[in-house]
Amino acid sequence: MSAYHELRAHLRQTAALSEVAGRLGWDQQTVMPRGANGQRAEEMGAMEDVLHARRTDPALGDLLEQAEAPDTVGTAILREAKRDYARNTRVPARLASELARVTALAQTAWEDARANDDVAAFLPWLEQVVALRREEGHAIAQGGDAYDALMQDYEPGSSAAQVAAIFDRMRPRLVDLRDRILGAPTPPALQGHFPQEGQLRLAHDLARRFGYDFERGRIDLAVHPFSSGSGSDVRITTRVATDDPFNCLYSTLHEVGHATYEQNIDPDYALTPLGHGVSMGVHESQSRIYENQLGRSAAFTGWLFGAMQSEFGALNIDSADAFHAAVNRVHQGYIRTESDEVQYNLHIMLRFDLERALIDGSLAPSDLEEAWNTRFRADFGFAVDRPANGVLQDVHWSVGLFGYFPTYALGNIYAGCLNGTMRADLPDLNQHVAKGDLSAATGWLADRVQRHGGLRPSVETIAHACDGTPPDEEPLLAYLEAKFGAIYDL
Amino acid sequence: MSAYHELRAHLRQTAALSEVAGRLGWDQQTVMPRGANGQRAEEMGAMEDVLHARRTDPALGDLLEQAEAPDTVGTAILREAKRDYARNTRVPARLASELARVTALAQTAWEDARANDDVAAFLPWLEQVVALRREEGHAIAQGGDAYDALMQDYEPGSSAAQVAAIFDRMRPRLVDLRDRILGAPTPPALQGHFPQEGQLRLAHDLARRFGYDFERGRIDLAVHPFSSGSGSDVRITTRVATDDPFNCLYSTLHEVGHATYEQNIDPDYALTPLGHGVSMGVHESQSRIYENQLGRSAAFTGWLFGAMQSEFGALNIDSADAFHAAVNRVHQGYIRTESDEVQYNLHIMLRFDLERALIDGSLAPSDLEEAWNTRFRADFGFAVDRPANGVLQDVHWSVGLFGYFPTYALGNIYAGCLNGTMRADLPDLNQHVAKGDLSAATGWLADRVQRHGGLRPSVETIAHACDGTPPDEEPLLAYLEAKFGAIYDL
Repeated sequence: MSAYHELRAHLRQTAALSEVAGRLGWDQQTVMPRGANGQRAEEMGAMEDVLHARRTDPALGDLLEQAEAPDTVGTAILREAKRDYARNTRVPARLASELARVTALAQTAWEDARANDDVAAFLPWLEQVVALRREEGHAIAQGGDAYDALMQDYEPGSSAAQVAAIFDRMRPRLVDLRDRILGAPTPPALQGHFPQEGQLRLAHDLARRFGYDFERGRIDLAVHPFSSGSGSDVRITTRVATDDPFNCLYSTLHEVGHATYEQNIDPDYALTPLGHGVSMGVHESQSRIYENQLGRSAAFTGWLFGAMQSEFGALNIDSADAFHAAVNRVHQGYIRTESDEVQYNLHIMLRFDLERALIDGSLAPSDLEEAWNTRFRADFGFAVDRPANGVLQDVHWSVGLFGYFPTYALGNIYAGCLNGTMRADLPDLNQHVAKGDLSAATGWLADRVQRHGGLRPSVETIAHACDGTPPDEEPLLAYLEAKFGAIYDL
Repeated sequence: MSAYHELRAHLRQTAALSEVAGRLGWDQQTVMPRGANGQRAEEMGAMEDVLHARRTDPALGDLLEQAEAPDTVGTAILREAKRDYARNTRVPARLASELARVTALAQTAWEDARANDDVAAFLPWLEQVVALRREEGHAIAQGGDAYDALMQDYEPGSSAAQVAAIFDRMRPRLVDLRDRILGAPTPPALQGHFPQEGQLRLAHDLARRFGYDFERGRIDLAVHPFSSGSGSDVRITTRVATDDPFNCLYSTLHEVGHATYEQNIDPDYALTPLGHGVSMGVHESQSRIYENQLGRSAAFTGWLFGAMQSEFGALNIDSADAFHAAVNRVHQGYIRTESDEVQYNLHIMLRFDLERALIDGSLAPSDLEEAWNTRFRADFGFAVDRPANGVLQDVHWSVGLFGYFPTYALGNIYAGCLNGTMRADLPDLNQHVAKGDLSAATGWLADRVQRHGGLRPSVETIAHACDGTPPDEEPLLAYLEAKFGAIYDL
């Protein structure tokens, strides 16, 4: 057997074990008995140890040196596998293990701190996590920038400088748009009681219309919506608030975007380094375009308006235009995950600047709350009322996800590019979408983006889909200005 | 760290990984999307490879040689771990891997063969499985008896000679009892339509009454009822036939017996070699005593008669005595799993003799069908009508489970012993059981048997529970003769 084939076998087994570990996470958040928590932590720890040993196995290093790629797929596999191996072997086992231990405890501490609005109780944990991740960043960077190194875990090929430049160009136009919207009359919100059974029936219908394959997936209830798994077992979760059906329906569309990306990857790439989404940014581009550019389009909300009346009876909103405005309501708020398309990226910019400063040491964890509050007032024009609505709102920093936040904004930007190219390619798209038929759109995305998995780095993946044009923020901004200009009659 | 503590850490991680692998099996049979079958096979194969490597790790062998047990628990852990290590390292990796591959294929071949009553199609697979397991038995036995060696996988400490002697003593009394029953009038069967929702509600109620802890378990639907997991995550499944509620209810009680055994083991033994049932025979003793000696007792069926009327309305049977007779109906039949308490062990004796002959080579696989049919007519007094009701009815031989069948009969025998001692200890037991209160019985079993897990070998486990008396068949036979003598007025 050639080194290349031995390498493929090694990677394949690791990928299969990684799927198993991922499914433990799904199980824990959907069906696991409550009393199994302690035992489950040991089970997951044991799987992590097995995976870590395989990912840093010197025999794997030898194979990566010796293997010769027979084709372009093989070249891409080697590229991804070599990057992962270099990253994993640069982090001392002691540090990796300490990070796993501390972040598990820090997440619980964060949950308690958020529940009690107690920043001081979380501070010692934050200090440890920042110190460990900074150390890890430096270990990976080998003399380069630690924050840039951490970003590679989520968006390989990205850099903080490049993201900062994009954000500098986006901010004034987003702020201007937001201010004009908030100066205009606020459209009425959807109100009423929407039984769980009807919401779930409609969520399943939406998932099917957006191309989710239930032969290789399923939808369950969980506290937080997520998508899990790759290849032929990709499961999603949703949640139901009986006074707010958009929560269930749009979180379902979001997760269906993630899940169909995984389901539609070329089966030949299954259980290889190309067999899952190439980056968090490209992943988010799929979830966002499903949820926003498609799901919140006037064409689709027109169809959904009728579907909701069929499911729930008469609504408090009586026209498709008003329904479209209700779905796309822009409102002042503290919380990133509840934000609208216009303000969402402003939430990301705030976090990006603060977490860069935490990692480069120019901001001490003890000064983070004040820095957050000052920045929030400057960016959003009103004061944070309590830490749970401010610096403690997101789980990310407690579990060490520094460098992750920018991928949400990159996902929005990529989705803007894809939407522009797709609509130019499919001029009749809205006529189908208005009938609840998404197949032309999801087929286009499957062909242009999803089936390629990790074949090309993320920027090249988007450029390939957009006829060679590399991604930038302009299509997203133009889309937002046009869409919300029309809704708010600006 | 001492060798003993290093050993404990090694075993603990293996046990945690084994729980993960087991839960993949649960997932596959309950919630897995249908299209995930192929990927799941790779995931399970990867877990098996990891587990096999750990279980035959030379470093484990060194630790087992060096470790000194600090107490009786440590002595038991070393006993179990040394036996497993010796067994696993005696089997060449090539043979273990070939067995896994061939039995996976043979099981599918068996399913098809049974569906088509096609013994010839299954024969080449049976020949391979018999040859491989015989080779494995000889490798483990190291000059001893191959069938005895295979029995140790399921009932350590047992031997074919000892089981054969027990069966020789049991057979005439069981045949005599069966013949007298079949000569008496047959009681009416329960008939009607029993909706799934009501059956599942009652099954959950029964599980609670028999002590199943839903904080550390759950009940799902599956094609075959089973119990899965140990420690704080022990899940069971059931199935529903709307014309036969006893199928759901008594399979639930059976699995609750298995599951509470696992749930009630001393938490200090969790993720050690003592943290699961000590043998298949002792496991089956718990499932059988829950299902039969308790669940099919007149005291309990008296309570169940009322509970079923509450759930389903009036029944076609109008007295508690007639209901008890319907629950315990003895009838001629081909199928082991549908058999009654009286004839069940006769089905086991047939299989035991045939599989011993297959392993020692005195019966060729090509002669198995004829041997089965001849023996069945001799033992049961009527002819097998088709292979699916005869030699092809059980999955066991297709997956290599030679030496497993006798543990069902040993479980019945152990249950008979436990029932005798328990009822002598708890003279008022029936008064509580008649009110649907099983706590005294399940508490007695938890204390005498279940909490000890693998601390003592199986015969010692039963003897310990029975005030020092080693198990024999007499209590079971006396129980059956008294119970069915009363029901059939013999």
